[in-house]
Amino acid sequence: MKETGFALVESKLVYKGNIISLYVDKIRSPEGKIMEREVVKHVDAVGIVALNDKGGIVLVSQYRHPINADLLEIPAGLLADSEDPAACAVRELKEETGYAAVRIEKLAEFYTSAGFTDERFFLYFSSDIEEGEPEREPGEEDMQVVIIPLKDAVEMVSRGEVKDAKTLTAILMAAQKVGRIEL
Amino acid sequence: MKETGFALVESKLVYKGNIISLYVDKIRSPEGKIMEREVVKHVDAVGIVALNDKGGIVLVSQYRHPINADLLEIPAGLLADSEDPAACAVRELKEETGYAAVRIEKLAEFYTSAGFTDERFFLYFSSDIEEGEPEREPGEEDMQVVIIPLKDAVEMVSRGEVKDAKTLTAILMAAQKVGRIEL
Repeated sequence: MKETGFALVESKLVYKGNIISLYVDKIRSPEGKIMEREVVKHVDAVGIVALNDKGGIVLVSQYRHPINADLLEIPAGLLADSEDPAACAVRELKEETGYAAVRIEKLAEFYTSAGFTDERFFLYFSSDIEEGEPEREPGEEDMQVVIIPLKDAVEMVSRGEVKDAKTLTAILMAAQKVGRIEL
Repeated sequence: MKETGFALVESKLVYKGNIISLYVDKIRSPEGKIMEREVVKHVDAVGIVALNDKGGIVLVSQYRHPINADLLEIPAGLLADSEDPAACAVRELKEETGYAAVRIEKLAEFYTSAGFTDERFFLYFSSDIEEGEPEREPGEEDMQVVIIPLKDAVEMVSRGEVKDAKTLTAILMAAQKVGRIEL
């Protein structure tokens, strides 16, 4: 990795939880300035754009406590200890929607909000899926599967109706993959 | 807002910082199950896709301590107290790159990672910008302005070279706006 010129001077663990840990760090800039940074360390996350044989994208609607609202999202979840991200994508799709992905490929890997958290998101794609029964985990009972044509999902993005960042990215990347962007 | 059926049972403030606060909450599901949730409350953020008169997208490269690396991003920043998001987009573009946005419009509003944080991101667009001098804030001295053709940015997305979530979304939404997605 390229030398950034920044150095960690002090790191204080404020909270260690199940999914996140919070640190308050002091760093030194290349100019010698000391700055404080609040850092949330977060387990990596994985999601999948799954298209059925009619070109419908498989989404789930679920309650998200931090925003106190239901949110329409691609199937996604947290990486279990030492789990392969691709295996996690297949598992989450099956658990949440019942669909089994026969073949998958990686679309992207990105940081969700690098100003304050190290959370990484691995995004996968499959257009080869087979219907089945969901295997929901405790706390996921309220989840609803929503399948809409990818074309309609792209229009929802244009109208500002997709409120989840990874899902917005996923819909546009899937559209770029199965179609093309004309500039 | 639609009734979700979930209720907040207990909320414990663990840390109150400058940009984030951490809560550990207990919530009750519609089925009566009590679940713990770690919630990071975060100031809302704003960013802008700015295109110059040659169709180049204005990006910045800066050090991000949580991932200990430099990251290529759209100009962005945090909403100041009671600041209008559109005004914030214009301010951040000017501060970080020197460009003055003559006209802007809103592209999207989304949650960055709603499983653990309430952070919202407001995304703006301008293709009417005028060159000028940056007005960097303390700690932003290391920032580099990078201008690349939007077409090349879209290809970087395809090759998995854009690692910042909001920037990935921004490039694809800008491409969808100035061009079109053929499905």
